[in-house]
Amino acid sequence: MGTSARPAPADVRTVVCVGAGVIGGGWVAYFLAHGFRVVAWDPAPDGEERLRHLVGAAWPALTELGLAEGASIDNLTFEPDLAKACAQADFVQESAPEDLELKRTLLADIDAATPEGVVISSSTSGYGMSEMQDKCAHPDRTVVGHPFNPPYLIPLVEVVGGTSTAPDVVAWTSEFFTLAGKSVITMDREVPGFIANRLQEALWREALHMVAAGEATVEQIDLSITDGPGLRWPVFGPMLTFHLAGGQGGMAHMLDHFGPSLLSPWTRLVAAELTPELRDAVVDGCDREADGRSIDDLVAERDRGVVAVLRALGRA
Amino acid sequence: MGTSARPAPADVRTVVCVGAGVIGGGWVAYFLAHGFRVVAWDPAPDGEERLRHLVGAAWPALTELGLAEGASIDNLTFEPDLAKACAQADFVQESAPEDLELKRTLLADIDAATPEGVVISSSTSGYGMSEMQDKCAHPDRTVVGHPFNPPYLIPLVEVVGGTSTAPDVVAWTSEFFTLAGKSVITMDREVPGFIANRLQEALWREALHMVAAGEATVEQIDLSITDGPGLRWPVFGPMLTFHLAGGQGGMAHMLDHFGPSLLSPWTRLVAAELTPELRDAVVDGCDREADGRSIDDLVAERDRGVVAVLRALGRA
Repeated sequence: MGTSARPAPADVRTVVCVGAGVIGGGWVAYFLAHGFRVVAWDPAPDGEERLRHLVGAAWPALTELGLAEGASIDNLTFEPDLAKACAQADFVQESAPEDLELKRTLLADIDAATPEGVVISSSTSGYGMSEMQDKCAHPDRTVVGHPFNPPYLIPLVEVVGGTSTAPDVVAWTSEFFTLAGKSVITMDREVPGFIANRLQEALWREALHMVAAGEATVEQIDLSITDGPGLRWPVFGPMLTFHLAGGQGGMAHMLDHFGPSLLSPWTRLVAAELTPELRDAVVDGCDREADGRSIDDLVAERDRGVVAVLRALGRA
Repeated sequence: MGTSARPAPADVRTVVCVGAGVIGGGWVAYFLAHGFRVVAWDPAPDGEERLRHLVGAAWPALTELGLAEGASIDNLTFEPDLAKACAQADFVQESAPEDLELKRTLLADIDAATPEGVVISSSTSGYGMSEMQDKCAHPDRTVVGHPFNPPYLIPLVEVVGGTSTAPDVVAWTSEFFTLAGKSVITMDREVPGFIANRLQEALWREALHMVAAGEATVEQIDLSITDGPGLRWPVFGPMLTFHLAGGQGGMAHMLDHFGPSLLSPWTRLVAAELTPELRDAVVDGCDREADGRSIDDLVAERDRGVVAVLRALGRA
């Protein structure tokens, strides 16, 4: 396997976006705003029209956040021929519908048309690359780069390879996305739903159960998040949030005090057994994240963050 | 049952906070900042000291958000005698540790010392008032008013009565919290964990499973939320967020397109069956929430919100 045509992550100029729906179009907007040239392909008859509508709708937010030097909607080319699009790629981001057979075939087509060594990343929200890459002649350069909607605003990208993905391709992809301004989690094993989707899927399923059982309305569910824990989560994640629920004792006190509530019927999801090993893993992880900040420091930081969020949203 | 001593919700002047740990102390700070006189009781030897530390730590954030006229830390009295504290109440908020027997006994003691008709609300994060009120001589005026940490910043309060709670007490409590600046969800039935805690508990349990299984680290879990879906949740809740994942087709397209992914192993939580009734309930709920705003309107509103959050947190 040669990698002759693979540019260094910092040298990528042209990104090819395959599939230009909500996610693919969001990627197009993101890469344009970050100064890349983008070639987009979509099979829908109104694909270009929808894409330009979506990019236009995203542009004010991207402008507000600050465009890269040279960034312009004019750097977008819509190319109706997939092979001609892929031939121009320094990097490919595939965002086709979540249909395994479709993606297996499409990735093989992309692979056949993309210059040797150039990385092909998939936006799949749930399939592992191991399931999708097997029809490719060069599966080693295929990798998952899973974004969140809208990809032009939400920083997170989860990067994970499949069994045939070359480790240096995973590393290259994480470096490329980081240089392109993304917040990258590099996973060393495939887990269905990756990380963030597993967490939000658990919440989503509990919400659906509650609606189905008549326990809460759609509006109550949304209000309970936007006016409740949702105000904390852009500041600190669920672990560090609970680190502060234990008072000065932090996560250790929290788990020792509230551990029994894991047996309460507070969700339909059966809890993990709180073994000493799990307890220590969670406590140690919070300590590493706190990184020397005391509980008082973290409380002050959380409070500044929540106040800033409330004020920013006009809810102070 | 008389209600002679119960003031109108707008006439409450003195709030008695029973229990002054992280949650109870947070309530003290909140009520002080909103101009109330607060009498606090806590059995810990260092209870007053811890309380004043907590209120002092909360005060900068509360000042930043804007204090009510006459609001002052000087309006706090620490009263070491529970009965003397309760005797002064226009409203009682109980925030004792999550121990059912403790709460049952404590609520009876509060009930015995509080003027006739005055409402007694519990911060319990998981017990139903039906379980807790049975030792009270006047259980009709006991109710759950469940806040989120920190109660001085997070607006949400879930209000729900027990089997012996008078309906007008539930209504009074919701009105009082609303007048006091809270965002209130009034539930018409007791559900373990109420609403928001069920949702965040499902997420928390999935996170613990992932750590236990070696699928993700504590740090990856927190980053996946703060840099991922957590940035959307203060703006739109999970339902309206997914309303926008379906493109112009909204939640209806989302459920029809991604419904099958409910069968995917993306969380350990088994999904609700997506019956036509559940589908319609979710779609109709999103339509009611959207309240005439088009998908384009909502996308623009979400984007402005996420951009504001990113900028407010210095992450633009």
